[in-house]
Amino acid sequence: MPILSRLLSFADSFTGPRTVHAHCDLPCGVYDPAQARIEAESVKACMEKFNGSDDSVFKSRAVFIKEERADLVKHHLWVLWTDYFKPNHLEAFPQLHDLFWKATKAAGETKKTNDTAVAEDLLAQIAEIDRIFWETKK
Amino acid sequence: MPILSRLLSFADSFTGPRTVHAHCDLPCGVYDPAQARIEAESVKACMEKFNGSDDSVFKSRAVFIKEERADLVKHHLWVLWTDYFKPNHLEAFPQLHDLFWKATKAAGETKKTNDTAVAEDLLAQIAEIDRIFWETKK
Amino acid sequence: MPILSRLLSFADSFTGPRTVHAHCDLPCGVYDPAQARIEAESVKACMEKFNGSDDSVFKSRAVFIKEERADLVKHHLWVLWTDYFKPNHLEAFPQLHDLFWKATKAAGETKKTNDTAVAEDLLAQIAEIDRIFWETKK
Amino acid sequence: MPILSRLLSFADSFTGPRTVHAHCDLPCGVYDPAQARIEAESVKACMEKFNGSDDSVFKSRAVFIKEERADLVKHHLWVLWTDYFKPNHLEAFPQLHDLFWKATKAAGETKKTNDTAVAEDLLAQIAEIDRIFWETKK
Amino acid sequence: MPILSRLLSFADSFTGPRTVHAHCDLPCGVYDPAQARIEAESVKACMEKFNGSDDSVFKSRAVFIKEERADLVKHHLWVLWTDYFKPNHLEAFPQLHDLFWKATKAAGETKKTNDTAVAEDLLAQIAEIDRIFWETKK
Amino acid sequence: MPILSRLLSFADSFTGPRTVHAHCDLPCGVYDPAQARIEAESVKACMEKFNGSDDSVFKSRAVFIKEERADLVKHHLWVLWTDYFKPNHLEAFPQLHDLFWKATKAAGETKKTNDTAVAEDLLAQIAEIDRIFWETKK
Repeated sequence: MPILSRLLSFADSFTGPRTVHAHCDLPCGVYDPAQARIEAESVKACMEKFNGSDDSVFKSRAVFIKEERADLVKHHLWVLWTDYFKPNHLEAFPQLHDLFWKATKAAGETKKTNDTAVAEDLLAQIAEIDRIFWETKK
Repeated sequence: MPILSRLLSFADSFTGPRTVHAHCDLPCGVYDPAQARIEAESVKACMEKFNGSDDSVFKSRAVFIKEERADLVKHHLWVLWTDYFKPNHLEAFPQLHDLFWKATKAAGETKKTNDTAVAEDLLAQIAEIDRIFWETKK
Repeated sequence: MPILSRLLSFADSFTGPRTVHAHCDLPCGVYDPAQARIEAESVKACMEKFNGSDDSVFKSRAVFIKEERADLVKHHLWVLWTDYFKPNHLEAFPQLHDLFWKATKAAGETKKTNDTAVAEDLLAQIAEIDRIFWETKK
Repeated sequence: MPILSRLLSFADSFTGPRTVHAHCDLPCGVYDPAQARIEAESVKACMEKFNGSDDSVFKSRAVFIKEERADLVKHHLWVLWTDYFKPNHLEAFPQLHDLFWKATKAAGETKKTNDTAVAEDLLAQIAEIDRIFWETKK
Repeated sequence: MPILSRLLSFADSFTGPRTVHAHCDLPCGVYDPAQARIEAESVKACMEKFNGSDDSVFKSRAVFIKEERADLVKHHLWVLWTDYFKPNHLEAFPQLHDLFWKATKAAGETKKTNDTAVAEDLLAQIAEIDRIFWETKK
Repeated sequence: MPILSRLLSFADSFTGPRTVHAHCDLPCGVYDPAQARIEAESVKACMEKFNGSDDSVFKSRAVFIKEERADLVKHHLWVLWTDYFKPNHLEAFPQLHDLFWKATKAAGETKKTNDTAVAEDLLAQIAEIDRIFWETKK
């Protein structure tokens, strides 16, 4: 990911005083869908590791580590849904409830399979949430 | 953060097949210093909320939520240090051990104060770790 | 909360033979809104303890214990929403998304106040969720 | 477990107006053996799922999810034993120590087997604890 | 607590070749009352820090960190009681149930006060558990 | 590991009057490498149990319980490294950074194998950390 990385570094050096966005109930106001996305990438990587191995112990480890990572995906998404989004966001994006419900259900589905298409579907839903999130930040 | 956000959105739409980077011991290979940075931003925001309020209950909540967030910063940094970085990275960046030691100590310091300069110092150290991390990804 | 409490108790005594139902992603199929309700009662009790004391240490403990209990309320509700409820339930009870969104937001609100009316409002929303839950079990 | 289940349900419908009671050390005073029972039902359901499947990944997931649920059973029982029960309860019910010791040991046993009889034995012990608990509430 | 501390140290130096023993339900067989003792020392140290400070934020931190440490004491003791001790140990040491009940209650008491005598009492009870534990290891 | 074990025990019996030392960021000042060592012994015991069994469910449990115990080893070591050791300790023991990096990496390695030699290597590194720790306490 060198291009994005370079853009980030570039952007970083110009953002100056950062304003931040919430993931606790203070609320501190620091939210970022990247937290859910990183864990979902991990879920997908666990599936790939599982599929590429024929060591039963390793495969077993991939399964339960994936279980934990998928739980983190659900947690980060739930927090965004309940804590970040406000009634005015829901008016602008009426699909939010359904989008989060399906995305968290998709995270649950990734526990039950090692089909990476299911993880990619989850990532696509998180990308859509990410898109809306940054829309509301404008 | 509209500029970074727009760059990210732009970059996002062109990164195509993402390769991912580890935060478990499978290892799944999905690592990202953004996890530590987001929690550190939250630490700083808790300090600002603490300083801007004169409600003792609210201030008390800001203090213990900050404590939890600082613990998460430490955890994410420790994971990067032990799990992501390899001997060849250490040869290229001999300052890594000291950098992580000081950054995790800085995270500990943020628990003991509400001086945002301490959180900014932590953020600067995480930014340096982030820079090195992406250097090793090239 | 004697009235709501009595109504809840009354409802409890008539739900008839209870079979139990899922709260993991196996899924094991054991779900029960009682988990959220018990933690919400604890939240309310913490408020009462806070209001009835003038010992600052005790009051401080009441605040952060309440914070943890409210987190558990949110967690149990999120699990019900995502894991138990299915598309056919949503058709029969189209208010589900909004109900859970508001109930989990109400749980977040209880962290910010020691006004027991806020906890009672949360309990009333959980009671409504409980009612729908058992409707779907018939 | 239809018989025990029916007995439990029967008991549930007659406990009359429930007041709720403590599970933290504030103490908030909100305790309820239902918390242990729900997790124990989940343990039993995991065993049934394990026994009814011949998918090794699914069976492996059933085993470690059961492990977590059994830990929660132990935790909820320990809290009741230490935090809820007082010396006068012990005088009235001298079997309490042994009952909790055996019940938490039974929860440990459910991790080592997929024999549902072991889970039913655990549920029966929790039912006995539940009975005594509500006796002390009268 | 110099006297108890010295006695504990003295006992430590004579327990001879230590083999280590269980704290999970595998069971792996590795148990050690030192885990509870270390957390209890931390509880006592938090009280001393609380009493020696007049910074309200610091005092508040001491209180909730003590709360967490006391929870760990309870957890380690419960695990020893349920998982390590067997019926034959109970025959040899019939006071075990009561000893653990009172020790875990004492751990709960340390949350409610900053009187170090309460923590010393807890440490004395853990020392007695430690003594019996090593007796059963002979 | 009888030799290492005996050496550790021998060392234990000569450390003289132990004062106890910090594992939170208050800081309470209670630290003890015994916490990491106990979990590492558990890791080794899980491997032995795994190797000595031919029950696939039991072996699977041994693997994921080992995973958790190894995480605790890492956590306790990270806390010691960041929170206990100070710049003057680093001057006296310049190998500290590398020692902790390798020890935590060794803990990660124990998740990936059931070769007890890997656990013994981890225990030897913890013994070295323990030796330095007590040197700094003199």
